[in-house]
Amino acid sequence: MKALVKTAPVPGATLSDIDEPKLTADEVLIAVKAGAICGTDIHFYHWDPASANFPVHFPLILGHEYAGDVMSVGDRVTGVAVGDRVSVETHIPCGACYQCGIGEGHNCQDMGLVGISYPGAFARYAKVPAKVVYRLPAGVSYEEGALFEPAGVAMRGVDEARIAPGDLVVIVGCGPIGLMAVQIARAVGAAQVIAVDINEFRCDMARRMGAAAVNAQRGNVVETVRQAAGRKGGADVVVELSGAPEVYDYLFDLLRLEGRLVTVGHVSRPISVNISRQINLKGVALKGVFGRRIWETWEHLGALVAHKRIDLSAVITHRYPLEDFQTAFQQVHKDAGKILFIPE
Amino acid sequence: MKALVKTAPVPGATLSDIDEPKLTADEVLIAVKAGAICGTDIHFYHWDPASANFPVHFPLILGHEYAGDVMSVGDRVTGVAVGDRVSVETHIPCGACYQCGIGEGHNCQDMGLVGISYPGAFARYAKVPAKVVYRLPAGVSYEEGALFEPAGVAMRGVDEARIAPGDLVVIVGCGPIGLMAVQIARAVGAAQVIAVDINEFRCDMARRMGAAAVNAQRGNVVETVRQAAGRKGGADVVVELSGAPEVYDYLFDLLRLEGRLVTVGHVSRPISVNISRQINLKGVALKGVFGRRIWETWEHLGALVAHKRIDLSAVITHRYPLEDFQTAFQQVHKDAGKILFIPE
Amino acid sequence: MKALVKTAPVPGATLSDIDEPKLTADEVLIAVKAGAICGTDIHFYHWDPASANFPVHFPLILGHEYAGDVMSVGDRVTGVAVGDRVSVETHIPCGACYQCGIGEGHNCQDMGLVGISYPGAFARYAKVPAKVVYRLPAGVSYEEGALFEPAGVAMRGVDEARIAPGDLVVIVGCGPIGLMAVQIARAVGAAQVIAVDINEFRCDMARRMGAAAVNAQRGNVVETVRQAAGRKGGADVVVELSGAPEVYDYLFDLLRLEGRLVTVGHVSRPISVNISRQINLKGVALKGVFGRRIWETWEHLGALVAHKRIDLSAVITHRYPLEDFQTAFQQVHKDAGKILFIPE
Amino acid sequence: MKALVKTAPVPGATLSDIDEPKLTADEVLIAVKAGAICGTDIHFYHWDPASANFPVHFPLILGHEYAGDVMSVGDRVTGVAVGDRVSVETHIPCGACYQCGIGEGHNCQDMGLVGISYPGAFARYAKVPAKVVYRLPAGVSYEEGALFEPAGVAMRGVDEARIAPGDLVVIVGCGPIGLMAVQIARAVGAAQVIAVDINEFRCDMARRMGAAAVNAQRGNVVETVRQAAGRKGGADVVVELSGAPEVYDYLFDLLRLEGRLVTVGHVSRPISVNISRQINLKGVALKGVFGRRIWETWEHLGALVAHKRIDLSAVITHRYPLEDFQTAFQQVHKDAGKILFIPE
Repeated sequence: MKALVKTAPVPGATLSDIDEPKLTADEVLIAVKAGAICGTDIHFYHWDPASANFPVHFPLILGHEYAGDVMSVGDRVTGVAVGDRVSVETHIPCGACYQCGIGEGHNCQDMGLVGISYPGAFARYAKVPAKVVYRLPAGVSYEEGALFEPAGVAMRGVDEARIAPGDLVVIVGCGPIGLMAVQIARAVGAAQVIAVDINEFRCDMARRMGAAAVNAQRGNVVETVRQAAGRKGGADVVVELSGAPEVYDYLFDLLRLEGRLVTVGHVSRPISVNISRQINLKGVALKGVFGRRIWETWEHLGALVAHKRIDLSAVITHRYPLEDFQTAFQQVHKDAGKILFIPE
Repeated sequence: MKALVKTAPVPGATLSDIDEPKLTADEVLIAVKAGAICGTDIHFYHWDPASANFPVHFPLILGHEYAGDVMSVGDRVTGVAVGDRVSVETHIPCGACYQCGIGEGHNCQDMGLVGISYPGAFARYAKVPAKVVYRLPAGVSYEEGALFEPAGVAMRGVDEARIAPGDLVVIVGCGPIGLMAVQIARAVGAAQVIAVDINEFRCDMARRMGAAAVNAQRGNVVETVRQAAGRKGGADVVVELSGAPEVYDYLFDLLRLEGRLVTVGHVSRPISVNISRQINLKGVALKGVFGRRIWETWEHLGALVAHKRIDLSAVITHRYPLEDFQTAFQQVHKDAGKILFIPE
Repeated sequence: MKALVKTAPVPGATLSDIDEPKLTADEVLIAVKAGAICGTDIHFYHWDPASANFPVHFPLILGHEYAGDVMSVGDRVTGVAVGDRVSVETHIPCGACYQCGIGEGHNCQDMGLVGISYPGAFARYAKVPAKVVYRLPAGVSYEEGALFEPAGVAMRGVDEARIAPGDLVVIVGCGPIGLMAVQIARAVGAAQVIAVDINEFRCDMARRMGAAAVNAQRGNVVETVRQAAGRKGGADVVVELSGAPEVYDYLFDLLRLEGRLVTVGHVSRPISVNISRQINLKGVALKGVFGRRIWETWEHLGALVAHKRIDLSAVITHRYPLEDFQTAFQQVHKDAGKILFIPE
Repeated sequence: MKALVKTAPVPGATLSDIDEPKLTADEVLIAVKAGAICGTDIHFYHWDPASANFPVHFPLILGHEYAGDVMSVGDRVTGVAVGDRVSVETHIPCGACYQCGIGEGHNCQDMGLVGISYPGAFARYAKVPAKVVYRLPAGVSYEEGALFEPAGVAMRGVDEARIAPGDLVVIVGCGPIGLMAVQIARAVGAAQVIAVDINEFRCDMARRMGAAAVNAQRGNVVETVRQAAGRKGGADVVVELSGAPEVYDYLFDLLRLEGRLVTVGHVSRPISVNISRQINLKGVALKGVFGRRIWETWEHLGALVAHKRIDLSAVITHRYPLEDFQTAFQQVHKDAGKILFIPE
């Protein structure tokens, strides 16, 4: 089968013809109907410095955001059947550590990672352990299903922000996850959502999703948020999804006293934080997010998508066959929302 | 001034000409622009058996759901000024008891009640302690403002239900509070809202607000909810706002295992509950609600209304001058949503 | 091997010599070192009317509270090894339903029950699915381990009560679970614990565990609690563990406004509840509890026991060999705390 | 009356004879029976660089941790009476801002601060607004009462850490607040408390209060915590009370995945934080704490002290008359726990 493979820690990848995956007793085989490019894929494709932080197993089939049809299942698999339309959780919990035992397997001590330490899905077929397979609700398309994994990051970011009805929410970063977070924040009770980016194309996408977007290179983010906040003095909630170190220059200033900050974006360099002034005196609650709660986050998301409370497809701007992977990996650096591979 | 007054514990009320209220140093005077009829007013008007449960002080000016303009303020009042457009919290906390000290003054041990133990507002002017005055957000109308007190019951009922994104929520009872609860549940993340009533006019109103309404006299409520629930096995959340004892025949059956039930409606007779089967084995979390958190509930609501996430005015079906009070108190027993008095 | 077996839905049980259990690939074999008699065992032994509510599979080896050594493990078992000292969760989650998916497998839609629908452990050896095996922390004895399952009910009851530091907590029912709840409530921050029973022997046990016990047949429970509550007006928390319908005559009166009630005890007949007065106006939060969170509850408990913050062994009053089962099942109706079988 | 006064932003203070305070209608006069030296007092006494961050009003009577008897009350004061034994909340909420409205007045937008912007209490008498007066529970001594304000910081730090039963808790910094936090963490359910300091005298005090203390200059803090954590991989909770920038070199390494960090100590210089590795991938929840919730924190603390679940007096090591203020302000830099002034 065709698969986008990376064989060594150098820039680039190859569309190769490789054997179809062999299943162990606990795995399932999925015919991939749609795959989406994640920031991690981009790091790996270019093999930029960030790549070195990941436990990559070569040769690696890239890609971990995808949906498709179950084609076959291993001997011991229960709860997933041939023909199921599914998406996949990237974090493969060990099931045995302390965190797995108390329901925090999304941050397992001995976690596998699809498309990193475990084979990915930019291919005709992909295998995966049955325990990370999520059956799509009726009426959800493959393209939407391919976005459940990154949408789950947006969903969990918003969940951890504990948005109260009527909150003023700031979403920093209008990449695909940020755009989905805008929609989700509105769907779960934010009265106002202010989105921040430095790319006007993305700001415009955020506006179409209901946010009052600010281009940080043109407007004053802090002033915009404070004006919207009125008596509150600042935002109730800030969700950081950009990973841009520059935003930390003003991130804490966006919050009201006793406000909540969720950080998701990976930042390439250490940030200087004034613990007294920015955290303690301000009474900030900060939560770092990695992965999706299994399956709480997916269930929240699945119900919102299935009942049309949010529209994941609105963040998709480009679709390519796998053959055009080079074009696709160039497009991510231009004006784009989410970019999909449609294998067939 | 004209005021709708009840002088004795017998049916009826009188539109009297009485002196304008005199303020103490901690009170404010409000020119009433819109008042709404509450179920309590109806009990008192007819002086039905439920009335005996309330600490009524005669002569009583009826009415406690209202909005208007501040006309004058007592000597010690701060934070409220002449010209402020305001609504009013009915529960007057003592400020000194244990509950007031820990932020639960909505259920104070020594609480005053506007329109019950403290003079009401179906009149040209009303006085009230400054500490229960809520300043309306910009852009909110007097009519909406008059509904903040009952909408706050809906808001708090939904808040206490801790709706998770994507929840299936059942609202039992489609009176004005139920109708507002439908809107709020949708605004804060419910994927599906099923409303229940026995009056088709009200079911239709609920449908217009986004619910899938069931007329309990025509359809099977439990079956409808279970079908909508799918794998969950029942609703995540049920909010009981009808006070009808009959609904308890099936109320617990609507819930999924570990579901949440909020009861707000006052029930005229004791309910027989199978603690083992309906509460313990099912893992139900039940919360009884009385009043609005001061001011958390109001802030949640105010932001949702001001930013047009919900439309309180959609529940208003009739408006009368005070002179037509007899017609108004008849209309509440016919097809109606919320009924307002417009004093001038 | 010797095992206490019930072959039919009639009173009594037989100490039989039966084959040792055969393991499936997902099961483990445990050499039972200590087993404890639960109320369910007593129902089954006498085959009283309550027994009919349980999905008993005959022939049934009685007993589900136990600890021992792992003797062998099935082919697919990981995470449990021969020689492990273990206790066992009674609720066997299916792993596939909605509740299992969101971390609420303790109340699974398709649950197995050790000692009820799945073979029990009043025997020399017991088998059990590996997924319900809990490895005992170092330093915890078999006798303590045999009490983890009922202690877990006490632990979860207290967890669900969300005790705040300094709370006044009332524990209703001083059977073994109540006695352990007294210890746990104190260990997690209750300033005062008042225990209630009608048996003076048990009241005395509660007093030795740090509670101010009230014999409900001799003292006035409501008055005692209100005096202890002072300005609060009532208890912050009540945990109902007796299952006695009579206690509901005063249960709600024990609580302060906005207090929390956890019900665990199974009540033999429906209870009449005044929803308006006892739940809504009072602002009560009620949570029904069935089973232990897997494994959060066990981890909480295991750490408290291992670090000597509570002493489970203090509730044990009698120990018998299996041969004396008739004496043991008589003793439960006399003055007793927890009664153990020591198989060898 | 005698009072320890600071008249200008230079080192030192003067024991002066000044007029007794005059009350406004909303204030009360307190005869000070015990006062405690806080870190802020030390900053001001030496007028070190940190002092410049505070809105000091000169001339300033130093001191804000104290207890005493109410001698007289202003005309409008209710809820406090002559003869009441009281302590005082340092944070004077405005009562009108958004934060005050939603029950977060401890972090008010327009807050007064006793002993900083409002006169303090190292004097024979002190005045204070009635709204920040806390009546001591029966049986609590003046010396304990003088410690309620700093103990409230410990209490709130622990409250915000949301300790689960059986948690492993690390308290960083064994000054008086740290020592009280050790006691409180144990009282509310921690199975193990590890305290960290660089002063052996204070480590020894922590040990006497039930912690397993580590001297960070002699032992390996991370290794000690990890060994105690076992399968958890790190502490469930870390509370930072030292304000020492050096501890941030290892602070995040102490936590398990998805652990909780509460920061209270004010740090003199910015801290470099690796958001990706130390916050996001680790799933850390961080909460900054300033002040005590009014009155939730005080009620929690009051009940624990009154019912002898913690012993605040155990942290007191020195007592001086006001005349010996120079000795007292030297002693704080030597081996000491809490140092009190006893005015008479």
